[in-house]
Amino acid sequence: MAVYTEVTDEALAEFLSLYDIGTLTAFRGIAEGVENSNYALKTSEGDFILTLYEKRVNKEDLPYFLGLMEHLRAHGLPCPLPVRAKDGRNLKELAGKMAAITTFLPGVWPRHIKLAHCEPLGAALAKLHLAGEGFAMTRRNGLGPDSWSPLLAKSLPHADSVLGGLGAELQAWLAQIEADWPKDLPVGQIHADLFPDNVFFLEGQISGLIDFYFACTDILAYDIAVCLNAWCFENHAELNVTRSRAVLRGYQSVRKLSDSEINALPVLARGAAIRFLLTRLYDWLNTPEGALVTPKDPLDYYRRLRFHFAVSGAGAYGL
Amino acid sequence: MAVYTEVTDEALAEFLSLYDIGTLTAFRGIAEGVENSNYALKTSEGDFILTLYEKRVNKEDLPYFLGLMEHLRAHGLPCPLPVRAKDGRNLKELAGKMAAITTFLPGVWPRHIKLAHCEPLGAALAKLHLAGEGFAMTRRNGLGPDSWSPLLAKSLPHADSVLGGLGAELQAWLAQIEADWPKDLPVGQIHADLFPDNVFFLEGQISGLIDFYFACTDILAYDIAVCLNAWCFENHAELNVTRSRAVLRGYQSVRKLSDSEINALPVLARGAAIRFLLTRLYDWLNTPEGALVTPKDPLDYYRRLRFHFAVSGAGAYGL
Repeated sequence: MAVYTEVTDEALAEFLSLYDIGTLTAFRGIAEGVENSNYALKTSEGDFILTLYEKRVNKEDLPYFLGLMEHLRAHGLPCPLPVRAKDGRNLKELAGKMAAITTFLPGVWPRHIKLAHCEPLGAALAKLHLAGEGFAMTRRNGLGPDSWSPLLAKSLPHADSVLGGLGAELQAWLAQIEADWPKDLPVGQIHADLFPDNVFFLEGQISGLIDFYFACTDILAYDIAVCLNAWCFENHAELNVTRSRAVLRGYQSVRKLSDSEINALPVLARGAAIRFLLTRLYDWLNTPEGALVTPKDPLDYYRRLRFHFAVSGAGAYGL
Repeated sequence: MAVYTEVTDEALAEFLSLYDIGTLTAFRGIAEGVENSNYALKTSEGDFILTLYEKRVNKEDLPYFLGLMEHLRAHGLPCPLPVRAKDGRNLKELAGKMAAITTFLPGVWPRHIKLAHCEPLGAALAKLHLAGEGFAMTRRNGLGPDSWSPLLAKSLPHADSVLGGLGAELQAWLAQIEADWPKDLPVGQIHADLFPDNVFFLEGQISGLIDFYFACTDILAYDIAVCLNAWCFENHAELNVTRSRAVLRGYQSVRKLSDSEINALPVLARGAAIRFLLTRLYDWLNTPEGALVTPKDPLDYYRRLRFHFAVSGAGAYGL
């Protein structure tokens, strides 16, 4: 929910004159996306999204994100297509921020996850992975395994204020995840944040995958582990195996998992759970009292992590 | 900037089935409007706005607001038209809130006010006043003169924390405004909150007036006074007379002001300034420290009020 940067009429008009997308007919801030300012832009040619990149996004990563979307779209994935300005560039400056226009995607993200969403989700994720092949750029996962220990260190002094013993438990769990982390799994371009609000559906089909601003080059199956955490839990504690089986079935209908990928699912799921637990814990401890935007409860992911540690093998996910 | 209520897919689908506006193609939260939850709704038939009324809006006022928009639109004003459901009603329930669908209006609200906006603004306001004639319902101005004293009383204990002596100064000013308040000016349906973010322009013309949720039945010229405050000041302290003259010229090109209305402009402008000063002061003193939404500085309207008290007659506004 976010519009952080106001754009004046003059600046907008000047910005749009750099593009060949018709004349402006409407411009409204969108209350979605937490990292950037997003506007719905309507012109005589159709609907677009204007994104201004705020300080949490590293400018140097923008060519990767925009290039990846362009590559994925060219390879058939329904993701936003960055629109190139008259000079051929897809990244410009507006109101003192880096800015891009992308195409508008129809669809609605599911507020209630249903089983019927899960197989299409898995298939779309596998398509994303295949479509990413051949993309020449790479980006290190800024929230990958080597970031978790420093992230935990920042929250450690106050972790037990959230739950008694949480700090020590997370240290022990993290040490085990780091020791078990797989080294030789297939790597490629991953979304790394494919939560329900980033997946649009229309009449039961996936109509759009959005928000590639955590995308990076990392273990493909880790992206599945993120989705199992984000889409398949009930009450944050219990895996709905019917759903996770559907995600995996959808995925494998497009890209077959190797035995090593399947065997790594539990540790990847633990890793994905601790990644979101750690960022939420940090936000929880560092959001001022009384802020109107309530940080997400980190314990939702603590419960998931506990589940993944009780699991003895990939069978628990329905394989 | 606001989406307070989440709408599930199922609830949305059921809600839309009550209307005859085509099939859903997109649904996004809008980051504008502070009182209600607003969504941009796109269907096979076009663009709409879905509004969920949050607790700051009194349910009993909704038939007035929606009825007024329908009346104004029928009389040629470019305001949102409430869409009637199949059963003929324009007000329904969704996600536990009262909800309405209105038509989408093109245009962009001016982030930078320019002289060229002011004459069309004045003319549009007068058209609103004329279009409101014949509307049978009335609504008391909940933020009218009789609300100001109780509102000030709530902020008085802490007013001086904002500016030394502010409390006593406001008490004295308010007493004078109350004593001078005009009794016999023409009354009708007024917008009462026609700030720049409620006025859309397209190619120099007004394409839409929105957000009628402060509308009420009150002194017509008070609406002009609100606009003079909202559109014609520079640095919150200096009236730009060229702009205020343009607003008044635009207004009078459609509806001629009487001598009594003209003579009352200074006290009406003082009243409008103290109304926004008092609500902002209250929000300022009652917004928790560190909240992500910064309340607006009440002193912006203190400076305007000071200007209006230094004025000896309507000539100061360019008449």
